[in-house]
Amino acid sequence: MERDYRKDFPLLMQDRTVYLDNAATAQRPQCVIDAEMDFYKNHNANPLRGTYPLSVEATDIYEQARARVAQFIHAASTEEVIFTRNTTEGINLVAYSYGLTNLKAGDEILVSIMEHHSNLLPWQMAARMTGASLKFLECGKDGSVDLDLVEKLITDRTKLVAVTQISNVLGRENPVREIAAIAHKKGAVVVVDGAQSTPHKKIDVQALDADFFAFSGHKLFGPMGIGVLYGKKALLDQMPPFLSGGEMIDSVTREGAKFAELPHKFEAGTVNAAGTAGLLAAIDYIEGIGFDEMERRELAVTERALSGLKEIPHVHVLGSERAEEHTGILTFVVDQVHPHDVSEVLIADGISVRAGHHCAQPLLQYLGVNSATRASFMFYNTKEEADRLVKSIASIRERMGYGR
Amino acid sequence: MERDYRKDFPLLMQDRTVYLDNAATAQRPQCVIDAEMDFYKNHNANPLRGTYPLSVEATDIYEQARARVAQFIHAASTEEVIFTRNTTEGINLVAYSYGLTNLKAGDEILVSIMEHHSNLLPWQMAARMTGASLKFLECGKDGSVDLDLVEKLITDRTKLVAVTQISNVLGRENPVREIAAIAHKKGAVVVVDGAQSTPHKKIDVQALDADFFAFSGHKLFGPMGIGVLYGKKALLDQMPPFLSGGEMIDSVTREGAKFAELPHKFEAGTVNAAGTAGLLAAIDYIEGIGFDEMERRELAVTERALSGLKEIPHVHVLGSERAEEHTGILTFVVDQVHPHDVSEVLIADGISVRAGHHCAQPLLQYLGVNSATRASFMFYNTKEEADRLVKSIASIRERMGYGR
Repeated sequence: MERDYRKDFPLLMQDRTVYLDNAATAQRPQCVIDAEMDFYKNHNANPLRGTYPLSVEATDIYEQARARVAQFIHAASTEEVIFTRNTTEGINLVAYSYGLTNLKAGDEILVSIMEHHSNLLPWQMAARMTGASLKFLECGKDGSVDLDLVEKLITDRTKLVAVTQISNVLGRENPVREIAAIAHKKGAVVVVDGAQSTPHKKIDVQALDADFFAFSGHKLFGPMGIGVLYGKKALLDQMPPFLSGGEMIDSVTREGAKFAELPHKFEAGTVNAAGTAGLLAAIDYIEGIGFDEMERRELAVTERALSGLKEIPHVHVLGSERAEEHTGILTFVVDQVHPHDVSEVLIADGISVRAGHHCAQPLLQYLGVNSATRASFMFYNTKEEADRLVKSIASIRERMGYGR
Repeated sequence: MERDYRKDFPLLMQDRTVYLDNAATAQRPQCVIDAEMDFYKNHNANPLRGTYPLSVEATDIYEQARARVAQFIHAASTEEVIFTRNTTEGINLVAYSYGLTNLKAGDEILVSIMEHHSNLLPWQMAARMTGASLKFLECGKDGSVDLDLVEKLITDRTKLVAVTQISNVLGRENPVREIAAIAHKKGAVVVVDGAQSTPHKKIDVQALDADFFAFSGHKLFGPMGIGVLYGKKALLDQMPPFLSGGEMIDSVTREGAKFAELPHKFEAGTVNAAGTAGLLAAIDYIEGIGFDEMERRELAVTERALSGLKEIPHVHVLGSERAEEHTGILTFVVDQVHPHDVSEVLIADGISVRAGHHCAQPLLQYLGVNSATRASFMFYNTKEEADRLVKSIASIRERMGYGR
């Protein structure tokens, strides 16, 4: 008999809803909640500066979490792992610290049309402030990326390429490794949004050859308020600090400061050590199950939902025809029914999905839809939940007065 | 009989240590830990965008916390309350967003010599990037501020004044309201570091007439990873966003974005809603006790410790002679003994204190000490703990071989 992982998640055990908004945030297993609580009850102190036992314990937990993250994404060293609040902050850090000092008028930034606003707006800001220009890499209607087009778009003027590993709308994995190889031939750096990939796939930042890779704890079953920016040491070393204040200095005078070494140079102010305790527990939890098992389960429910949706007239799933190219994300439209009405019907049926532009307006515009409804699965979702989703969607047009 | 507030704090009940590093971070009462846990177990979803019940609940908690904070610091509106990670991020937000767009060569920034690095380094950065110059407001050896000197230093060239409400080394409250009045006569804005004041004193940002006021949840018995920036609406409205990404936009095209209204304009990416649930519980906890009661208790233990320390030869407490001008913070040096050795002796005696420059190197240099040991009290500390501190300090010189 298969293990019931749902028992690990206190909210899921309440059976309140079919939770299909996992791409927005995951549910937390009890072990993650316990790890944060244990920090506060047994080791709570401000880490890094204190030499008394509580503070040393807090520091140990914080740095253990960093080492665990480095191993999880296969970073070459813990110095390359910067704790942030979330993916958005990580990418903004790169845009301000790397972008403003390395970009200039005449330079080009290539951004994929699939980017979440978090990997687009910081580059619009950097372009505005430096005079660099923004170019877009468009994709096929199925979300596929044409590497010949990438070769054409990345020129000697291209200094930075921003690409998501997995689109939060289409769920399709991009050929990041191949894009990075093309970018590196031209001397451009690659900034990868890993928010949607880290909860679903084993990540190897060295194999991807990503220069920067950002992700969030809360999508990874970890707490809110903690995230990670990976950066290659050679790049991080030459970058100025982003936020400045306590903990990130070696010495300060009235006139200026000598900054601390990596990774602390980029971690100003009191760190969220309790958050890292939770993130560490989340990684332990994931690796205890294993990505193979998680992907197998997730694919099974995604396949079931996708094949069910394909049977329903007037329902169109964005992106690939193949379930294995969706990473659990099914974004769809129903002819003539507004996506907000679609989601309200689903919500009335006890299914938690999200409608709107999914913080990817340029992609939706490109695909010719203003908004869409998204159901996003995690390994803990069940076939029964997939069936409830399909059944509910199948009833929508009739319930809205359009007939089947 | 007095109520034993220590029972509210699970870590304190373990009796592991005399915890006197409260100025670095406070301990968390059970109700704060429970509030975060309750969020994850019963209401966990990504707030603000979802219309399904869990997401609506998460949004409600998040916005209730904002309203509670607005009331706590007496902001004129919830639009003036921005959630950040910590004080440091709040001040950096002002330095980047307000500073870089409003300062220019020839302008002056006045910074008090007492500032924590968090309210100094961002201004060094802003000065470096805009060509503005940094001037310092020095204090008396007792930490007092001479308002005549303030009048002299704030000129027509002064565009911004950065001042802490309470020094994290001296514990003395600065005349922020009077400094703000002088600054406003000359058209300068005032950025107040409230990290050390919010846990100890009732704050009224309107009475202070602070333009910006930043503080941290974790020093206020709340969780790590959540903080607040207050700003006057008229100023925040005209400022560009700092971090950009999801949740802070109205609409996005390839070329640019229309940003959301306050306060969301400044809250990019998934917010730490669980952290705000904990912060809300912390404010409820504080107001349940009341600042009068907290200050009365804290002053009693501070008086006891300070009068004890005054009796010990070769021990010098920085700042005022009067306990009521220390807000629970006693930073001291012992003749001939290195502060790190002082703290090691105290730690050996089971007392958690901190030695070093306390992220205020310019102040320590100004006071002629390289580093010092700090014991910082909270309302939950006891007279017995004050006595243990005094007794341990009294023994230091003899134990280090200097005789009494």
